[in-house]
Amino acid sequence: MNNGIFITFEGPDGAGKTTIIKMVAEQLGEALLTREPGGIDIAEQIRAVILDKENTAMDPRTEALLYAAARRQHLIEKVKPALAEGKIVLCDRFVDSSLAYQGYARGLGIDEVFTINQFAIEDLMPELTIYFDIESEKGLKRINKNKGREINRLDLEDLEFHQKVREGYHLLINRFPDRFRRIDASKPVEDVFNEALTIIEETLAKRKPSM
Amino acid sequence: MNNGIFITFEGPDGAGKTTIIKMVAEQLGEALLTREPGGIDIAEQIRAVILDKENTAMDPRTEALLYAAARRQHLIEKVKPALAEGKIVLCDRFVDSSLAYQGYARGLGIDEVFTINQFAIEDLMPELTIYFDIESEKGLKRINKNKGREINRLDLEDLEFHQKVREGYHLLINRFPDRFRRIDASKPVEDVFNEALTIIEETLAKRKPSM
Repeated sequence: MNNGIFITFEGPDGAGKTTIIKMVAEQLGEALLTREPGGIDIAEQIRAVILDKENTAMDPRTEALLYAAARRQHLIEKVKPALAEGKIVLCDRFVDSSLAYQGYARGLGIDEVFTINQFAIEDLMPELTIYFDIESEKGLKRINKNKGREINRLDLEDLEFHQKVREGYHLLINRFPDRFRRIDASKPVEDVFNEALTIIEETLAKRKPSM
Repeated sequence: MNNGIFITFEGPDGAGKTTIIKMVAEQLGEALLTREPGGIDIAEQIRAVILDKENTAMDPRTEALLYAAARRQHLIEKVKPALAEGKIVLCDRFVDSSLAYQGYARGLGIDEVFTINQFAIEDLMPELTIYFDIESEKGLKRINKNKGREINRLDLEDLEFHQKVREGYHLLINRFPDRFRRIDASKPVEDVFNEALTIIEETLAKRKPSM
């Protein structure tokens, strides 16, 4: 049995979640901050196959299975042991990313991608998922700002994909209303951070008696 | 739509199926003989992760997902194109191996392993599966003979595993009676070869009118 608490952070690129998670982890102190493949050797090897630019022939289903495989190994070697020690585990992206990106935006089907992920995680779903919501145009502008350039015509395809990812997340929020908490990520960083922290502290407070 | 015919060959190690498939492929002439990862670059990379002896921490579910991923890529790049060209595809091991080995003998569950494989193959199951049946003791003796040694005490664990694999295959035969054809692989090679060839020719003959 796990005594720790498993919290995931989700959202389209450019929502600024990685910045916020770091701030949250610092604030909480004893939490484990991780993201797949998370330095787990086997998961890193699998990610290397996914991300190898030579692998242009990779089928979307192969990719989804590889993400699920890397997820499994990261869960077994890093997340589960930390939960067993009673730690707060903060994970930057988890199953929902596969559902929104591969399942919905890439069109493989949310249910089908969920099925292979269920095999990988064996019902170890997060107790809380904080979703960083942002309009796709704003998210894309932030990404490009980080890259030091303005939106151009070539970004329009990206924009359409970002919108689909966001739609996918919104479907997931409707499907898992108990687990998901939405934050408006277009607000200033301090506000987003405070909101995330409040949600997490509420969740922890609810758990206290049994811990 | 596929006009070719997809035939798989299954059985525990030591059943001699690889020898027989080569003989069958030579006899049939225009057939494609393959086995996963089959020289497909992405599938080879995935297999390398599975087979890397350093990866002792690999979880059985990670392994099953990786096999499914390699299977997907091999199917997309090699099997499907050959079937589309109307070829006879002879595949040395396929989904049933994962079901018998990982699903049954390793205890992950036949249904669960079938689920992730369904995601990988999208109902592209073989039209015919020839199962090379052999008593586990005999199969193990053959393997050891190839390695140039007798069965020893350490092989007993292997024996138990081989027996489970065989049990797994027998469950699959009961589950897919239309697709499976069993051959007694303890018979002399020529007999096994002739029996396999007869079964394949019968299957091809049934298909002829529509080809």
